[in-house]
Amino acid sequence: MNVTIHGRTRHYRTVTFDASRNAVQLIEQRLLPHEFKIVATRDFRETARAITDMIVRGAGAIGATAAYGLAQGARAFRGRDLKKFSTHIEAVYQSLKSARPTAVDPINAMNQVRASMCVGETVEEQQAIALAAAEEFAGDDVRQCEEIGGHGAKLIRNGMRILTHCNAGWLAFVDIGTATAPMYAAQAAGKKFHVFCDETRPRSQGATLTAWELAQQKISHQIIADSAAGHLMQRGEIDLVIVGSDRTLGRTGEVTNKIGTYTKAVLAKRHGIPFYVAIPLSTIDWDLKSGFDIPIEERHENEVLGAWGKNSLGRREYVRVSNPTSDACNPGFDVTPAELITGVITPHGIFKPRELRVQRLKLGFKK
Amino acid sequence: MNVTIHGRTRHYRTVTFDASRNAVQLIEQRLLPHEFKIVATRDFRETARAITDMIVRGAGAIGATAAYGLAQGARAFRGRDLKKFSTHIEAVYQSLKSARPTAVDPINAMNQVRASMCVGETVEEQQAIALAAAEEFAGDDVRQCEEIGGHGAKLIRNGMRILTHCNAGWLAFVDIGTATAPMYAAQAAGKKFHVFCDETRPRSQGATLTAWELAQQKISHQIIADSAAGHLMQRGEIDLVIVGSDRTLGRTGEVTNKIGTYTKAVLAKRHGIPFYVAIPLSTIDWDLKSGFDIPIEERHENEVLGAWGKNSLGRREYVRVSNPTSDACNPGFDVTPAELITGVITPHGIFKPRELRVQRLKLGFKK
Repeated sequence: MNVTIHGRTRHYRTVTFDASRNAVQLIEQRLLPHEFKIVATRDFRETARAITDMIVRGAGAIGATAAYGLAQGARAFRGRDLKKFSTHIEAVYQSLKSARPTAVDPINAMNQVRASMCVGETVEEQQAIALAAAEEFAGDDVRQCEEIGGHGAKLIRNGMRILTHCNAGWLAFVDIGTATAPMYAAQAAGKKFHVFCDETRPRSQGATLTAWELAQQKISHQIIADSAAGHLMQRGEIDLVIVGSDRTLGRTGEVTNKIGTYTKAVLAKRHGIPFYVAIPLSTIDWDLKSGFDIPIEERHENEVLGAWGKNSLGRREYVRVSNPTSDACNPGFDVTPAELITGVITPHGIFKPRELRVQRLKLGFKK
Repeated sequence: MNVTIHGRTRHYRTVTFDASRNAVQLIEQRLLPHEFKIVATRDFRETARAITDMIVRGAGAIGATAAYGLAQGARAFRGRDLKKFSTHIEAVYQSLKSARPTAVDPINAMNQVRASMCVGETVEEQQAIALAAAEEFAGDDVRQCEEIGGHGAKLIRNGMRILTHCNAGWLAFVDIGTATAPMYAAQAAGKKFHVFCDETRPRSQGATLTAWELAQQKISHQIIADSAAGHLMQRGEIDLVIVGSDRTLGRTGEVTNKIGTYTKAVLAKRHGIPFYVAIPLSTIDWDLKSGFDIPIEERHENEVLGAWGKNSLGRREYVRVSNPTSDACNPGFDVTPAELITGVITPHGIFKPRELRVQRLKLGFKK
């Protein structure tokens, strides 16, 4: 999407590849919203570290980073011995895989690249295919988000007030994003609307990343405390909710997303407000039979006990907010049942969450 | 309640009066939870400033502070001229009244003290009555909280996990508190239970004040993000909700309380979890006919855009968390309808919220 720095507007993707320098280029997301900076990793080890250190985060974005990282590692190989090359690729793969052990997107992305590489008969050919396959993965991520935007934009009418939670924006993907895609498409179609961003404690991705994105795209928006949405709905000030998904159960239509998503769905149901989830196909899990089987990550309590921000001297700092002798409980995600979800916005159209099963072929999955 | 400093445990009230020094003594609440300190105001102007500057906050606590402040002002008068004394008292009254213009508790408290003073025939008599009436007001606040605790403790069974929002604890009153009163009474009765404190963004009173209170009383507790309660309820980890009230509509049973209370009530209803509101009688409003008539204070956006905490050097600091070019919307309170409230815990027993009207006489109010 567009980013304006010192009055100059340019289009950026979160992840790109510089073939001449064999470098993966990333938006340094840890500095946002206070500073916009592109960093380049010189080898696959640095790329893996960028994933671990959360320079890049978000399902689609780390998938593409791993795909590019694999190509980067492949292209750094010197020699013609296919067996040695294969051993090297395995080491690159393992390094990138272990960068964020619980994430599934880097693995899927790298498997796709490796499967393509098999066709190549020489090291040189496989190196070229690796980069082409990584570019294809990234391009496909963008295309899926565009399609989600095309379908979702129909839900947005002039004057609407839309609530979103956390960041399922372009920073979490290669471009455009999922929950934000309908907003960007509606804006491109000339529609005017207002977005309420839940701040999304404890990590505040709504207040930092989503608000920054919307500000850059000049979309009218306000940040609210996570507790405020219920009141705004009660007073008739929210017309539509769109969120993202970290894992969508294809069998049941249940959606796992950032902690607090379930609460917003319960509130939306009570007030008769449409609640949509934008899902890239990679989040669909066809195996699990119940949302209660999804392991909910318990994150470090310091996230709840304090906050990161910029102090009066302009330095990024953690402050301890809470009582120093108290502990916190910090579940990172929650599960929203299908009955609370008006529809899921996929690249292939909008469906009822319980329809996903029967749309399996249409969504491009095998039986 | 008890406070332990350097291993020594002592009982404190939030507000007391030192007659020998004619000083109002207050817990400096702005330093909590990081430091416990008692400050003394030397005259009624300093007492008014302590209310304005939020050294003391919370309905019952500022009521008692104003009552003591009026007595302090009365006792500082030198002379026997009743007319001059009366002019002086009016000035003291106005000074304390304007300390927190929207609050109703200081006015009610001072009116009670002034009404008692009328009986005195000399300046000296009126001065003595003023202090006695202020002490009576404070004592009455404590008694009401004790009675709320006595009734509410019956709701708490061994092993229960209780959710509370914001701070309706002893720091908001003279002692014991309202939402916390049933917990303290249940603990005194030997019951074991666990409390989840909503951090209560944007001002984090749950994470700072309630967590500090519970830690001091050695009650098992954890702080959670405001978004986490829905998930915990869904997983069966919350058995009871108790919150306070800033204004309770006697005619309809609607409750105004800190932003986010309504959301917790909606979630509790969905999960069949009892939702109770502990209300001191002073919060009952017999005039308003609908919760929609209650003006909802829109507070400064900086509360949402950042956080106050202690930095690594041990200094209290504000950090800007949010995107610097975004605004916030910050409603301070919300309204919970009677249908979501299992019961209101009053000093005179537990009632259905819609029963308040018919219990008006029993609650000590005139027809």
